[in-house]
Amino acid sequence: MLYFENDYCEGAHDAILQRLMETNMEKMPGYGEDKYCASAKEKIRAACGCPEADIYFLVGGTQTNAVVIHSMLKRYEGVLSAITGHINAHEAGAVEATGHKVLGLPHYNGKLSAQNIKNYLQTFYGDANQEHMVFPGMVYISHPTEYGTLYSKKELEEIAAVCHQYHIPLFLDGARLGYGIASAASDATLTDIARCVDVFYIGGTKVGALCGEAVVFPQKAPRHFLTMVKQQGALLAKGRLLGIQFDTLFTDDLYLKISKNAIRTADRLKAVLIEQGYQFLLNSPTNQIFVILENEKMKQLAQHVTFSFWEKYDETHTVVRFATSWATKMEEVDALAALLLES
Amino acid sequence: MLYFENDYCEGAHDAILQRLMETNMEKMPGYGEDKYCASAKEKIRAACGCPEADIYFLVGGTQTNAVVIHSMLKRYEGVLSAITGHINAHEAGAVEATGHKVLGLPHYNGKLSAQNIKNYLQTFYGDANQEHMVFPGMVYISHPTEYGTLYSKKELEEIAAVCHQYHIPLFLDGARLGYGIASAASDATLTDIARCVDVFYIGGTKVGALCGEAVVFPQKAPRHFLTMVKQQGALLAKGRLLGIQFDTLFTDDLYLKISKNAIRTADRLKAVLIEQGYQFLLNSPTNQIFVILENEKMKQLAQHVTFSFWEKYDETHTVVRFATSWATKMEEVDALAALLLES
Amino acid sequence: MLYFENDYCEGAHDAILQRLMETNMEKMPGYGEDKYCASAKEKIRAACGCPEADIYFLVGGTQTNAVVIHSMLKRYEGVLSAITGHINAHEAGAVEATGHKVLGLPHYNGKLSAQNIKNYLQTFYGDANQEHMVFPGMVYISHPTEYGTLYSKKELEEIAAVCHQYHIPLFLDGARLGYGIASAASDATLTDIARCVDVFYIGGTKVGALCGEAVVFPQKAPRHFLTMVKQQGALLAKGRLLGIQFDTLFTDDLYLKISKNAIRTADRLKAVLIEQGYQFLLNSPTNQIFVILENEKMKQLAQHVTFSFWEKYDETHTVVRFATSWATKMEEVDALAALLLES
Amino acid sequence: MLYFENDYCEGAHDAILQRLMETNMEKMPGYGEDKYCASAKEKIRAACGCPEADIYFLVGGTQTNAVVIHSMLKRYEGVLSAITGHINAHEAGAVEATGHKVLGLPHYNGKLSAQNIKNYLQTFYGDANQEHMVFPGMVYISHPTEYGTLYSKKELEEIAAVCHQYHIPLFLDGARLGYGIASAASDATLTDIARCVDVFYIGGTKVGALCGEAVVFPQKAPRHFLTMVKQQGALLAKGRLLGIQFDTLFTDDLYLKISKNAIRTADRLKAVLIEQGYQFLLNSPTNQIFVILENEKMKQLAQHVTFSFWEKYDETHTVVRFATSWATKMEEVDALAALLLES
Repeated sequence: MLYFENDYCEGAHDAILQRLMETNMEKMPGYGEDKYCASAKEKIRAACGCPEADIYFLVGGTQTNAVVIHSMLKRYEGVLSAITGHINAHEAGAVEATGHKVLGLPHYNGKLSAQNIKNYLQTFYGDANQEHMVFPGMVYISHPTEYGTLYSKKELEEIAAVCHQYHIPLFLDGARLGYGIASAASDATLTDIARCVDVFYIGGTKVGALCGEAVVFPQKAPRHFLTMVKQQGALLAKGRLLGIQFDTLFTDDLYLKISKNAIRTADRLKAVLIEQGYQFLLNSPTNQIFVILENEKMKQLAQHVTFSFWEKYDETHTVVRFATSWATKMEEVDALAALLLES
Repeated sequence: MLYFENDYCEGAHDAILQRLMETNMEKMPGYGEDKYCASAKEKIRAACGCPEADIYFLVGGTQTNAVVIHSMLKRYEGVLSAITGHINAHEAGAVEATGHKVLGLPHYNGKLSAQNIKNYLQTFYGDANQEHMVFPGMVYISHPTEYGTLYSKKELEEIAAVCHQYHIPLFLDGARLGYGIASAASDATLTDIARCVDVFYIGGTKVGALCGEAVVFPQKAPRHFLTMVKQQGALLAKGRLLGIQFDTLFTDDLYLKISKNAIRTADRLKAVLIEQGYQFLLNSPTNQIFVILENEKMKQLAQHVTFSFWEKYDETHTVVRFATSWATKMEEVDALAALLLES
Repeated sequence: MLYFENDYCEGAHDAILQRLMETNMEKMPGYGEDKYCASAKEKIRAACGCPEADIYFLVGGTQTNAVVIHSMLKRYEGVLSAITGHINAHEAGAVEATGHKVLGLPHYNGKLSAQNIKNYLQTFYGDANQEHMVFPGMVYISHPTEYGTLYSKKELEEIAAVCHQYHIPLFLDGARLGYGIASAASDATLTDIARCVDVFYIGGTKVGALCGEAVVFPQKAPRHFLTMVKQQGALLAKGRLLGIQFDTLFTDDLYLKISKNAIRTADRLKAVLIEQGYQFLLNSPTNQIFVILENEKMKQLAQHVTFSFWEKYDETHTVVRFATSWATKMEEVDALAALLLES
Repeated sequence: MLYFENDYCEGAHDAILQRLMETNMEKMPGYGEDKYCASAKEKIRAACGCPEADIYFLVGGTQTNAVVIHSMLKRYEGVLSAITGHINAHEAGAVEATGHKVLGLPHYNGKLSAQNIKNYLQTFYGDANQEHMVFPGMVYISHPTEYGTLYSKKELEEIAAVCHQYHIPLFLDGARLGYGIASAASDATLTDIARCVDVFYIGGTKVGALCGEAVVFPQKAPRHFLTMVKQQGALLAKGRLLGIQFDTLFTDDLYLKISKNAIRTADRLKAVLIEQGYQFLLNSPTNQIFVILENEKMKQLAQHVTFSFWEKYDETHTVVRFATSWATKMEEVDALAALLLES
């Protein structure tokens, strides 16, 4: 069986397991107060070009979204998101469970536009009945998006400008951030992102770690953020598990290096698909590829390859997603290419 | 420096890291659908003597308490707990954050009594204004308790009988469950516990794992429990991390074996302290020891040993906690004994 | 100044104030246990043709929506609503504040279609990832809608059939229910509504009362509904205030009689507007009229009449809402007609 | 039957109904934007000696407590209250339902002491693990308390001083405030209270109104308070109902005058009880009297008088509560006295 179902079907990068072994019996304080967390934070600050950043390590993506959003919104505020945003569609209502509405905006291949955000805010603040409505208190974007697409540096700057104008924070969900930065299609670096947003996270779970997301507040975390993390059950006792992983990922540029593997293998897979005349739902420059398959073809393939059902395209076609990752081998792509050719 | 501050200052048992290494590049589905989770569940079912049990793996203790309690209470219900219960005192209001009141009852060395629970329930259901109050919807006990004490099998049965009589579930927080079962002071086995309670968890974080708690519903989990876990941000993408750890811990009785080490070292430490005339806050038969130290002595010791401040005893004395764990070496206890002797 | 801004700008129908006076010094129990509440419930049961109905009196509309929805949804469920539904747009996130997502569906002049609801439910239950999403746990419709439109008996039956098929309750927000029943445009009677839905409320605030909404569960209220009402701060100590009002409104058909006045005056106003060539946003057969005005005209009118801004139509036109009510006098409509003619 | 069960068993003071009649058909804006609300606020500001106060009218007591507390606490904060406080015991968990813990402190006849509050805060801020606990974010007191007792001006000032020192707001629940001010036993005036606290409310429901509580922020309400009121379903469409009532109660000192009636009748009843040798649970100087009755006597009385069961005193005695109100007639007290004498 070939696995292209998602980007979290293996364990962790070898170097991480190695470091966990080496440090295993060292005794250290809990809750992220250990030296590996401290070291990882320093390296991330350097990589992001924000020496004053407050950084926290959380365990998973849905958790991180819910914790960050609930910690930054006032209780009468909701969060603006593309209707395709992960928080709106695939997190079991985790944001609403903390009392906040997700205010869905139209998307363009998974992206929000600065203009749309601005229009929403203008209309809201122009409405005499605004006090009877949910105040827009944050903008949430994902980068790469749920469709594998990316914001350009200019697009990020424009969205940031609207947010600043209306004094609401901009939050970037980077569950797959490595794959965005490693892609040739975006000019936005870690430093650009850290400059544009008020908070973002660097995904570990999908980019080489066993688990873990690094939340970066380029300026300052909300007061008592740790207590809020604890209150939502997201504070890991053995914080070292996260610190050691991120310390490893941010040593010698490992995070970027392994991210590039996902892009290389995805690019190769795309080339194969194009060659063989497949149609794409959209052009995605990262590690997720959305292909339109005939239903029959899909069934055949499913006997040899795992992939994700995305959505029905029409009566006889289906959109499926192939995902590569830091761990995908070029031979696996070749094997998939052979399969596609055969069938 | 000697570490007796808590039972989570090392990484994981070697066997766990070994298994993580061996299985690292195997590809498998996420969210606990992998074969290691399945295998771990089978072994836990066998160890608990409940072949039909529903089992879920969560990441940490506060998280597990909040998820279990919120998933089993109706929205007009609260949870009965000793006022010293972890959920009442040290979880940053995680239960209340889900909308439920913790109904505090008096404790006896950290324990609830069946009689007290019964009195509370009788009084409640005898009150004509009950509909204006929080309905008692669950009993929460920890075993071992926050004071290291244990319920006997008989005590568990009595509490279970009251709960059954009033049709409310009994939840046992087993963050340190191994240390309870390994202690000679309690006759309650895993099987007894699984028979008495409606839900409990087997703590991994404090007993040899990097992270992880195994939630056991001896009969049946609440409907859509997985969705509720997800909604609270507690569903791990790479569920294998938890499955592999618990599979290892429940292979060849490893969980019990390493738990016994904590008891042996704690017993030895207690013997030393008694020998030297120290007073204890209470008699705790597990891995946490509560000693009353003169403040001067405490300051001296603190230069060489870490321990937890527990509470002020009087103007010149303080209660401190020493904790051993699966990883504590007898030599460390001896070194501590030497220190205590010297000073 | 002429008032057509909304349907709650006067006090209460005279008969209500009269009854409040007459009964004022009678001593009676609180919290809805008084004889007037009992009598009102009996009369409403009779009017709705459901002798076993559980009935509760709440104070206002947003409150009633939040209480009913939160009391009937499981915590992993959200509520399906037209995106124009009051709960989705104009209640400050009251539903989300209780932890539940409002799942917005497209609307047709403020209405949901049975087919759309069915499609949503089919797609949801066909999705392999449904456990990572918000379960659809209820359908919310308003009747009349926020656009003054009405469901036919057949449409209600079709929606009810879908709900029954999927075992989720149907909730009808009747904040303006009187105006729906009094309109010639719908064939759905109180009895039809009570037969089709699982819960609905009969609006008092906008139909002749000082305050108050009567929540009707044609079969059975959720267990401990009163406690949930109390928990959300919606239980009135002097429940008599609500009981006496609804007892009066349901004596000698007063509720329907005064509702008809709103329809008569609205119909007359519509006739005048049509005569004078005004365009409508849509055809609304109840007490709310949505007219497209030139911006200049709107400004002139605003000096003599109050109305609601609804939305921008284009650069030079605006949609405004005129509302009549139980208290609107035909002379007021005539005065407005004269004003429209003049200008 | 004689009614001494509570202080809300009649309707409203005549003058209020009169004003509701007179103003009934006046057309005015909703949501508290009407002239009667404005006038009532001015009169209350004057009565409280705080010309800059922000004032809002809510409907009931539990609602007001939940709205005020939830609007002023940060999400990681809880509210300190006597364990006997209404929010802790008798509001169905309304505060917890908004996500906040009620931190119970010991009470002295229903009162908190400044010293106890200070000790709690000192201990909390001295605890190295404070970030894992619920931050104390507000002090809640009721005046009169649930036991009918009162704080002296000095006690209020002392509590206020502690709150200021720790920068947390002081909230006074004045559901029965009139009966506190009218009592000879407290020297704290409305002005004193407004000077000492950060927010309080003037109870209408129990002091002459049909419903309604006036929330007073002597300095400034939290930002977007109205939206938070709306979000909790507590914003009345016909705000005039509350404005007219409070405008009447604060015209010609009506509020104080009618409050005095409750005190006069309670004092007379106490005198009768003392004369006849009854024992009191405690000395309560307001309109609630807590008497210890023999169970037999209690049963006899219950055939002719309504009162509240308070608690079991011992095997043969029970504590019951008699309450007078603005509406109690001296003849009713005399009739009760006669009954007590007879039996």
